Amino acid sequence: MSHFADRVIAAIRARRTPLCVGLDPRHESLPESIRQRHPATTAGRAAAYEEFCHRVIDIVAPHVCVVKPQSAFFEACGPAGMVALQHVLRYAKWRGLLTILDAKRNDIASTAEAYAEAAFHVYDADALTVNPYLGRDSMEPFLKVGRRTRRGLFVLVRTSNPGGGQFQESEVAGRPLFNHVAAAVQSWSAEHPGTSGFGDVGAVVGATKPAELGQLRKEMPAAILLVPGYGAQGGTSADTAAAFDSQGLGAIVNSSRGIICSFKPNELNWEASVERATREAIEDLAKNTPAGRMKTSSQ
Amino acid sequence: MSHFADRVIAAIRARRTPLCVGLDPRHESLPESIRQRHPATTAGRAAAYEEFCHRVIDIVAPHVCVVKPQSAFFEACGPAGMVALQHVLRYAKWRGLLTILDAKRNDIASTAEAYAEAAFHVYDADALTVNPYLGRDSMEPFLKVGRRTRRGLFVLVRTSNPGGGQFQESEVAGRPLFNHVAAAVQSWSAEHPGTSGFGDVGAVVGATKPAELGQLRKEMPAAILLVPGYGAQGGTSADTAAAFDSQGLGAIVNSSRGIICSFKPNELNWEASVERATREAIEDLAKNTPAGRMKTSSQ
Repeated sequence: MSHFADRVIAAIRARRTPLCVGLDPRHESLPESIRQRHPATTAGRAAAYEEFCHRVIDIVAPHVCVVKPQSAFFEACGPAGMVALQHVLRYAKWRGLLTILDAKRNDIASTAEAYAEAAFHVYDADALTVNPYLGRDSMEPFLKVGRRTRRGLFVLVRTSNPGGGQFQESEVAGRPLFNHVAAAVQSWSAEHPGTSGFGDVGAVVGATKPAELGQLRKEMPAAILLVPGYGAQGGTSADTAAAFDSQGLGAIVNSSRGIICSFKPNELNWEASVERATREAIEDLAKNTPAGRMKTSSQ
Repeated sequence: MSHFADRVIAAIRARRTPLCVGLDPRHESLPESIRQRHPATTAGRAAAYEEFCHRVIDIVAPHVCVVKPQSAFFEACGPAGMVALQHVLRYAKWRGLLTILDAKRNDIASTAEAYAEAAFHVYDADALTVNPYLGRDSMEPFLKVGRRTRRGLFVLVRTSNPGGGQFQESEVAGRPLFNHVAAAVQSWSAEHPGTSGFGDVGAVVGATKPAELGQLRKEMPAAILLVPGYGAQGGTSADTAAAFDSQGLGAIVNSSRGIICSFKPNELNWEASVERATREAIEDLAKNTPAGRMKTSSQ
């Protein structure tokens, strides 16, 4: 298996889109036809999530290169939810997709190592989101386990929620805290670059403030950006443009509800709706991504 | 069920010790006799963790009032590990112990709510540790679910790891960032006080810098402090003294390896060793806790 960043860049070039489909299964948002097939227990909910995600993966696998299951929804189904999560990650891999496990883990020493073992060995995700509040030595165990098996991390740098600024925007030495976190991510990522030039430590940066996104793109040239907030959360394709480098690379743009809930409230033929939403998001993102250059670079 | 903080304070008064036993089962640290009974698979490791934690709970339940299972080690055993975690939390509760699930969760909106549902409903922990980097609105879903069922949160404020200062000590408006996080914790906790005067949002503050601990105690009068770093991590009983208020209350002091690995390398009669280490830690902490006042207050 090659370097994580090289796998991401190759996959984006092959599919010619930076779109990532977020697998955030909420029970109340599943198609009624799937909900009805499973009992109203935590195990039944887990089975419904697994069925829904498998069907979404079937639909999106020909179009995109990466999916991002949200751990919390599976965890809320108890141990059965973790079996479902394992199956979803395995199925996505089998369908040729890269997987980012969105679990925002953080701890130190052997505890952080146990989280990394869980994500990369037991659940076999290609990448994991992590929270930086505990500092450099809290990243090392994740890097140690991840680098052994060529996985990646995405560190929360700048989140798009309304209260995200409370600590992230705190002014430290004349700049917001998130710029300092970004500097740390750049240094961690540059330690271990792939042949693409990108490292195996990426950054989560929300799409809701384009100017900031462009600035952070410049400050972290080694980091692949994972950009949430596109679609249902209010970020537009134009807002995400600043996340890309001059080759149209270096970013993954996530859409969850905009795709997996696109059929609401009309549930008949929900799968066609998910496919249409996926195609539309790809086209929408292409408008503001230098896709031609992306194509050229892969030749 | 009464307010989380009132349950904690009543339990500490009943047991007359603020000691919390951390359940951090590492496979290589389990008694050989337990390791040998289970196959070397993730499911076998989960069964070994469950057996070990049940036996530790039997030993410590007559002496302490709270245990803190570390989610990461159970997660590293896959879905079977989550079954074990569920059993351990249930057994601790049945033995009359309060439980703090140490999982350092963090996210926003319905995702954070799913984590809270998992911790408080599916796994039925009395409290959960959370990471504040995402700001106020990331706490609200945890508070919403927690307050409905009278659970508690412990927010990471100041961690004791060597790199903990990288972001936590960043100077913001003339003070380290962690003081600003502490101010937020104080305001969140003071929103919903119990009859004890403490709120349902506590703070994780490492024991390794006593002066800082005392300062943070003063800055967060409404918050119960959860103090790791005592024992194997280098913090002494004297170091933890500053965590308590004038009544000898308001803090929970955690020891993990100092108790659950106390038998190493002599494994014969490991249970007696765990009990002795528990009693010794209680006596050691009593030296620097105004235990007499604690006793008086409960009468």
